[in-house]
Amino acid sequence: MKTPGEIISQMYDNDAFSLWLGIERLAEKAGYCHLKMVVRQEMTNGFGIAHGGITYSLADSALAFASNSHGQQAMSIETSISHTRPVKAGDELWAEAIELNKSRRLAIYEVKVTNQDKHTVALFKGTVFRTEKDW
Amino acid sequence: MKTPGEIISQMYDNDAFSLWLGIERLAEKAGYCHLKMVVRQEMTNGFGIAHGGITYSLADSALAFASNSHGQQAMSIETSISHTRPVKAGDELWAEAIELNKSRRLAIYEVKVTNQDKHTVALFKGTVFRTEKDW
Amino acid sequence: MKTPGEIISQMYDNDAFSLWLGIERLAEKAGYCHLKMVVRQEMTNGFGIAHGGITYSLADSALAFASNSHGQQAMSIETSISHTRPVKAGDELWAEAIELNKSRRLAIYEVKVTNQDKHTVALFKGTVFRTEKDW
Amino acid sequence: MKTPGEIISQMYDNDAFSLWLGIERLAEKAGYCHLKMVVRQEMTNGFGIAHGGITYSLADSALAFASNSHGQQAMSIETSISHTRPVKAGDELWAEAIELNKSRRLAIYEVKVTNQDKHTVALFKGTVFRTEKDW
Repeated sequence: MKTPGEIISQMYDNDAFSLWLGIERLAEKAGYCHLKMVVRQEMTNGFGIAHGGITYSLADSALAFASNSHGQQAMSIETSISHTRPVKAGDELWAEAIELNKSRRLAIYEVKVTNQDKHTVALFKGTVFRTEKDW
Repeated sequence: MKTPGEIISQMYDNDAFSLWLGIERLAEKAGYCHLKMVVRQEMTNGFGIAHGGITYSLADSALAFASNSHGQQAMSIETSISHTRPVKAGDELWAEAIELNKSRRLAIYEVKVTNQDKHTVALFKGTVFRTEKDW
Repeated sequence: MKTPGEIISQMYDNDAFSLWLGIERLAEKAGYCHLKMVVRQEMTNGFGIAHGGITYSLADSALAFASNSHGQQAMSIETSISHTRPVKAGDELWAEAIELNKSRRLAIYEVKVTNQDKHTVALFKGTVFRTEKDW
Repeated sequence: MKTPGEIISQMYDNDAFSLWLGIERLAEKAGYCHLKMVVRQEMTNGFGIAHGGITYSLADSALAFASNSHGQQAMSIETSISHTRPVKAGDELWAEAIELNKSRRLAIYEVKVTNQDKHTVALFKGTVFRTEKDW
């Protein structure tokens, strides 16, 4: 059986969009992961701040890595995000995914995204369906 | 007072990330917009399908354009998305934002994302705060 | 195989809380149902308006009836609601559940709750897990 | 200026539905509250378990008390709940509301609902709009 690190490596190495975002892996274990990225100018929107899709994407990668790390393939069912503070080009973002609940078929994760000043910039919740397919 | 088209042009022309996504504007009016994009290889994840952040970003741009088009600046408060069908590189995505409710301070939008086969690939709901700042 | 009406009757007749709410069944078919209730004084909160749990409960019953009516038992995974307008004692509420998406294991419903003036008072979205257990 | 306890007392004493639910107040401070209730037979649904509206209502009362306790009237904008484990008649439910984020106009709370065995039965998230009206 693969370890969380082996599974996440296999996902991450083939995840073109997470690589485009410049996501780095800081820590991981079964049901948990901690990621980092730096916001670039090309990630901003018409208000001059990071597009909402950037923090969502970072949090969604954290959800995918944390929820697949148990060894069974997991698919996102429903996710929600609140953007609590503007993010600018140059900001560093940290995303920490924590498992709130896990049953045989379903699991729920919370991902908190913070910036270099330790301020929360987004709160994300995601529910996944745990398939019977192994990694 | 600016028209919906003028406001959305001003937002879109400065929205580096929406331009990176290759978003095209198909139609727009107050409280409504219709967008299109084509998924590229660099937008996929470790499962070989579009990263969840891609459909979210398209829907979130639709939310931003539709909710700002009334003339008052609007900020996303909370958004949720369900990914109902996998999206592949080469797929065409259409996002249509519809206003479900609008009061003085708040408004709620639904964005349906469909593919070239008219299948729904994502269902998005977004709530915005309507500031007193005019465009 | 049971009809939607037979399944919903079996659920409704044993649903003590829906009966306490005074929910009436107006129409139903596979993946759809339309309910009605009248708000009573004992359903209000400290603001003198209906407790948020009342419109949620009505919408959640609509979700349960609509999602189980296909013949397979369905369980709520995640639901969200926006309360868009205050509801008072004496108000009549209508809830219409519509199926937005259905796959083998999952289905998504939207429930719109309106009052006697045809105003939307709440927008509800619910995702269910479709078990293999038949009604 | 009123204390959190005074504000919540004023809300609770007039909250007919929270009283019907049998909600007890265990602890409260600015931005926080802890409630308890016992599930009764009349709160169950056609599956013989507590109607989803019961745990939602408990969590929504916790949201209302916690978010109003700062002294400004707060109104629910959007709430979501995941029912993670069935609840039966006779079960004791505890709801703890914690403030995740607060700005001038908006605040976000998480409410975890647990049973007598310390198992999580529901995870709730709520966003409120903070009006300028004082208690």
